[in-house]
Formats: sequence, C-alpha cells, structure tokens
Amino acid sequence: MSAAPEHLAPIAERVDGRLNDLLAAERDLWANVDPRITEAFDELIRMSGGGKRLRAAFCFWGWAGAAGVGLGAIDTPAAEISLRTATAFELLQAFALIHDDIMDDAATRRGERTIHAAQEARMTAEGWRGEPRRYGEGVAILIGDLSHVYADQLVGEIAGETRRLWDQLRIELNLGQYLDMRSAAAAEIDQATARRVATFKSALYTIVRPLQVGASLAGPVDAEFLEQLEAYGVPAGQAFQLRDDLLGILGDPSTVGKPVGHDLREGKPTELLAVALEAADATQAAVLARVGEPDLAQHEVEAIVGVLHDVGAISEINRRIDDLT
Amino acid sequence: MSAAPEHLAPIAERVDGRLNDLLAAERDLWANVDPRITEAFDELIRMSGGGKRLRAAFCFWGWAGAAGVGLGAIDTPAAEISLRTATAFELLQAFALIHDDIMDDAATRRGERTIHAAQEARMTAEGWRGEPRRYGEGVAILIGDLSHVYADQLVGEIAGETRRLWDQLRIELNLGQYLDMRSAAAAEIDQATARRVATFKSALYTIVRPLQVGASLAGPVDAEFLEQLEAYGVPAGQAFQLRDDLLGILGDPSTVGKPVGHDLREGKPTELLAVALEAADATQAAVLARVGEPDLAQHEVEAIVGVLHDVGAISEINRRIDDLT
Repeated sequence: MSAAPEHLAPIAERVDGRLNDLLAAERDLWANVDPRITEAFDELIRMSGGGKRLRAAFCFWGWAGAAGVGLGAIDTPAAEISLRTATAFELLQAFALIHDDIMDDAATRRGERTIHAAQEARMTAEGWRGEPRRYGEGVAILIGDLSHVYADQLVGEIAGETRRLWDQLRIELNLGQYLDMRSAAAAEIDQATARRVATFKSALYTIVRPLQVGASLAGPVDAEFLEQLEAYGVPAGQAFQLRDDLLGILGDPSTVGKPVGHDLREGKPTELLAVALEAADATQAAVLARVGEPDLAQHEVEAIVGVLHDVGAISEINRRIDDLT
Repeated sequence: MSAAPEHLAPIAERVDGRLNDLLAAERDLWANVDPRITEAFDELIRMSGGGKRLRAAFCFWGWAGAAGVGLGAIDTPAAEISLRTATAFELLQAFALIHDDIMDDAATRRGERTIHAAQEARMTAEGWRGEPRRYGEGVAILIGDLSHVYADQLVGEIAGETRRLWDQLRIELNLGQYLDMRSAAAAEIDQATARRVATFKSALYTIVRPLQVGASLAGPVDAEFLEQLEAYGVPAGQAFQLRDDLLGILGDPSTVGKPVGHDLREGKPTELLAVALEAADATQAAVLARVGEPDLAQHEVEAIVGVLHDVGAISEINRRIDDLT
C-alpha cells in the first residue's frame, strides 16, 4: 500500500472513511438478496483501498479555493459536498484501474493481486467450469462497472457546470486510454500523440477536472476561473507524466515503484521515446526498435537507456519538465 | 438486424435518430482532436444500431401513462424528456451487451461481428504488437465504458426519484450479471438463483425500471404507482425469461434466434434446468450433468431435451409462464 503523503492525509482519511462506509452498507444490503454477491463487494473494497487520493485532494482544494476557505473547514457541513464528490473521484479511479489492469494484464496493483488475476486463480482453485482467464476478466469488468455506477451515484443530483465537467472528464478518460492503447499497439510513437495522451490522462483527468469540479461545487463559477485552473493544471499534469515516463524507464527510487525497464517492455509510447526516435541514427534506431518486446533482456534495457542518454532525449525531457513547472 | 416490431417502431425510429445524432456529433468533435479516435465511435455506432428498443419503449410508455397521453403525443415538446431518457436506456443496453459479449466470447450480435472479435481480427490483420485477444477485449471494454458515460450524459440533470431509479437499475444490472456468471461457472443451478437472476436482468432492468423512470419523468409519482408498475412488470419479465430459456434450448423459431441447444452448451443456469435437476433420477441426472460442455454433440443435446420432457420440466415451465401472464 502506498500511503498518502502528509499534506494529502487529512483528505485521504475522510475520503477513505466515506468510501468504506458506502461499500460496507451496500454489501450488507445485497447480502440479504444473495450472500454470493458480497464477494463482488469484497473485491471492490480490496481494490479501492490505498492510493494517494490525489484526485480527491484536487477536488477538495478546488472547492476550498473557490469557497475561500482552508483545510480547517474540512469538517464543516459546507465541505461535505466536496468530500462526497472527492470520494466519487476515487471510485471512478478504482473503475479505471480495474479495467486498465485487464488491458495491461497487470498481476498486482499497490501490492494487491488485481481482480482479474485473483478471480482467474480462484476459478482454477475451485475447479469451476469454463475458461479461468475469461471468468477472471469478466468479474473484473463487472466490478469496474459497479464502481463506475457508485461513483456516479455519489456525484448525485449535481446540476449545471458540475455535471457537464463530470461527463466531460469521463469521456476524456476513456478516449485518452483508447488512444494510448491503440498507439502502443500500432507502435505509432510521436511527440504529439504522447503529449495528447498525457494531457487527457494525467493533466485533465487527474488535476484539471477534479479542481474544476471542486470549484463548481462552491457556487456559480465564471468561465475565466475555470480557464485559470486549466492553465495551471495542464502543464503541471504534463510535467508529472514526463517525470513518470523517466521513472518508468530508469526505475522508481521509491520501494513500491516500477522496476527499471518496465515501460520499455510494455512499449509505452512516451514522449521520451518519441524524442529519442526523432534524434536517433540508424544504429541507435535499431536498438530502440526492440522497445515493446516483453522478453527484453537486462542488457537490452541498458542499451536502450544508453541510447536515450546518447541522443540527448533524457536531458531534453528534463529540460521540458523544468519549462512546464 | 432484428427490426423493431410494428407497435414499437415509432419509438424505435425516434430513439435511433437521437442516438445517431449524438454519436455522429461526438465523432465529429473528437475527429478534430485525433482522427484515430473516430474508430472508437464507428465501433459504438455499429454496435448500438438495431435492436427492438424494448427498454426505450417501456420508458416512453411509462412517461405517457403517467402523463395521461398516448402515442399521438410522441412529437410534442413535452415528450422530449422521455425520448431523451429512452435513448439513454439504449446506450446503457449497448454498454451492457458490449461487455456481456466479452464475458460470453460471443462472435456476433444481431448479425454484426462483436467489437472484441472485430478488433482482435483487426490487430491480427494489421500485424500490430501484443496479444490480439487482449487488445480486442481492451477496446471493447473501453467502448462499452464510453457508451455508459453517454447514457448517463443523456439522463443528465434529472433529480430525485428518477436519478435514484437510474442508479438502482445500473447496480441491479451489474450484480444480476455477476450472479448469473458466477452461478454458471460454479454450476450452482437452483430455482431460487435462476428466478433471482431473471428478476434482476429481465424483469427489473428491462421492464420495471424503464417504466418507473419514464413515469417519474412526468412529475412527482407516489410510491404506490411505482409499486403497481413493479407488480405488473416483475411477473411479465419473469415469464419473458422463462420463454427465452425454452427458446434457448428448443431453438428459436425466428430466423435470427438462437440455434437448438445454444444455452445447453453455455451451461446457462436456467429455472428450466433447475426444475429438471430436482426431478431427475440418477440416470437422467447423468445426462443433465453434460450441460455446460461446449463440445456437446447433437445427439447429446437431443438426449438432454428428452430428459427435460420426460421429467416434466418443459410442461412445468410452460405452466409457470401461463401463471405469470
């Protein structure tokens, strides 16, 4: 489990409480209908726990900023709408992660076995009928869908600008992920596509929309203020993604992070790789062409990282991060 | 394509128009962001077409009944909210079918290749990188999710009872499907489970909730009226499911229907099968134990159907259909 950093902790704590209360209550309700349904809730509770609650924090701070209050207001009745919506963001994130983990065939997430992997193993262990992989993925699709519905239920009867933003960000999330998956498969690695995916998935979905949704909860917001939040959040999100791309290749210094070379084996179409491909000569391009091979050996990973350094891609990305922040 | 029956046609026509207008407009909008994204819309447009628009019709009739008007009012401004919400039901149904088709590994739907099958084939044809099956299913998960968001966007800023019902039916849909898939895998075939799944998926999701949502759009509805709609819709939906179960085993007389034995190869845990299992002697039970084997031979299908007749299960189900209708 990656615990929330100290400055996010007060929001994470309240969001975790609301999320657990909701799912525990629904689990109890449905246990009366059929006890087997509780298994679906247990999986959702397991996978929606943990996390830094980054989107929740941006939602709260968007509200607090627009309302002109600080963290001290967090337990006032006025803050409730922001915490409720912040919780919705985390259930939406659970939905996205559960579905993404199927697409990436990720075995673990924050130290927990992913739902599709756990359910596939369960079916095999029980000796049930059918294909374990299809069953595991089917259960994970449904539990992701369920989390999506509960997220939306928490958003509730919001009107006007808030709902428009909530719909918009969910469309951006899905289409950003589509573009990411499709360009990775087609090995269409260019700077414009990489930046576009980063804008949808990291900047808009993670930072800008939560801030804007939060702000809209405080009352009518003018278009200019929403644009200011976007002008702040887009470069911050892009910089965050560029840094994440570096960590995904060079290795994440924190103990829970990605291993060295992870994104190279996945063939993630990053801006880093796009910059390198443009600058590479024929020999270097041949080394980079191995990116996306799942069985990439350690010496190949090192050779690719060597090229990324030699063509100046790593220093260029570091320069862009500085420019954006 | 299964065309809408005559009495559903006026509603289907208007719903199809709204659905196509929405998706075409969104496709155009996103084409400006990245032309590759249009492929996702093309797939959704392809799979959301056709169908009888049954849920849309119940939504419209629920509204018309509560508003005290008839089909003649369909093009009045007052009807717009009901047609818009009816369209949402059909986008929600597209979401459910796209995801269900992954879980069932269905190759076709209404004569069209399913999204996961079409995208798997596309990846193979293009020679893209990665596993075609995983890519095809990933795209289908995302396009289903996208359809879910657009359904919700169409429902829009509805408040009070309407939103409560809309949230409720989406939870019932997902948990009904979970229970169905899980009991099929575990071969837990009993009458109570089969009836429960039919109640969630066929009665509530298909009939009762669309009627109730429609009724709630006409103005404040009292709890008694909602209960009356449930009292009508639940047995009607259960009877519909029992008839569908018979057709799924004995074959559907219409040309577009299921082939003889379809549900037996899938191991669908129907009430019909549960009744037969309870009444079977040891020899008959051994024949029924083959249900769920995908490679069931034609003579085995005939032997199973013979047992369903001999133990009186088919006549019992026909009796229950009569009682319910």
